[in-house]
Amino acid sequence: MSETSSSGPQRGTSSNVVWHGGEIARADRERRLGQRAGTVWFTGLSGSGKSTVAVELERRLAEAGRLCYRLDGDNLRHGLNGDLGFSEADRAENIRRTGEVCRLLVDAGVIVLASFVSPFRADRDQVRSLHDAADMPFSEVHVHVPLEVAEARDPKGLYAKARAGEISGFTGIDQPYEAPETPELRIDTSTHSVGEAAGLVEAYLQRSGWLGAGG
Amino acid sequence: MSETSSSGPQRGTSSNVVWHGGEIARADRERRLGQRAGTVWFTGLSGSGKSTVAVELERRLAEAGRLCYRLDGDNLRHGLNGDLGFSEADRAENIRRTGEVCRLLVDAGVIVLASFVSPFRADRDQVRSLHDAADMPFSEVHVHVPLEVAEARDPKGLYAKARAGEISGFTGIDQPYEAPETPELRIDTSTHSVGEAAGLVEAYLQRSGWLGAGG
Repeated sequence: MSETSSSGPQRGTSSNVVWHGGEIARADRERRLGQRAGTVWFTGLSGSGKSTVAVELERRLAEAGRLCYRLDGDNLRHGLNGDLGFSEADRAENIRRTGEVCRLLVDAGVIVLASFVSPFRADRDQVRSLHDAADMPFSEVHVHVPLEVAEARDPKGLYAKARAGEISGFTGIDQPYEAPETPELRIDTSTHSVGEAAGLVEAYLQRSGWLGAGG
Repeated sequence: MSETSSSGPQRGTSSNVVWHGGEIARADRERRLGQRAGTVWFTGLSGSGKSTVAVELERRLAEAGRLCYRLDGDNLRHGLNGDLGFSEADRAENIRRTGEVCRLLVDAGVIVLASFVSPFRADRDQVRSLHDAADMPFSEVHVHVPLEVAEARDPKGLYAKARAGEISGFTGIDQPYEAPETPELRIDTSTHSVGEAAGLVEAYLQRSGWLGAGG
């Protein structure tokens, strides 16, 4: 079934064949999965609904038979990036590794749903460049809400702590959020429901050819 | 098709639902893919045939419809671990990140075929522990050949350089290789062909329930 099957090695004839030709490639995995792999990068304020929309999108795509994986602070900060703090250098390294992990997962054929506040344009552009260099799709989704809406939601109680001065460098309070200028999508979750927001991203991926036939 | 479909959110009813229940899990992805995800860790001397066997195994598994991904120095040292050298600390960090990347890929549902010389028992055990802690299968495959056979193959010309003193700390020459004491498999590629070696691993994975029905 793979393009490489006709170029396989002769088996059982030599004990020291060194054969690296016709290796299975991303395109083979994508064909097997019936999807185009790529990274959907959700960016926005804490409380904007990034992760909630990503979870709902994943559920819809999984029900349609797609293979997705969500990356966020929970599964990276506690593992791969667990050695990093929040200094300027560590923040840059955090985003670099995150981009590299996206690239590995996409190479494996997976649709990556990454949700990170990622307040700095340069960081997001760096992750985009990594994908461009590997000819991998990258779509930036700006999950937008007015600051006052995000702060009223405050699902983790972080805005309250930031206002009280208990945490510093909090995006939207004492650190800027650099909104994307030309994201592939911008969705306002103060006017769209979670289901509507996920539907908008799904429709975008469908239009863009990520979901293959029957998606 | 997923177990979570009955617990989805109500759509379009509220603009600020925060719903994280019923998230798609590894088990859902494994079911979708018809395989059990895990890491096959190939360890052995340079020239032992680790990568060659991994490539052939990947080809067979892909032809049987399995989703695999190969990790090796080529796709990690140039990307994620590109900032690391070969000091003691960097070597440890290299193996830590590699283990974490295995874990993310396995969580995504992928069968990881990792081939690294990984000469130190403690390092391999660390990667195994990471998998154990996440209840993920980990199988160590010791790809063995007598040193003189590996050195005679010398596919990258590295043994010659090590003997000439042009590179130091080369496993088998001026750095020890700590052979696994109880690997899941040990395969001698001086007496088995590449095809036979890949077949032995495939049979092991089949016996161990990684390949699902029809693998």
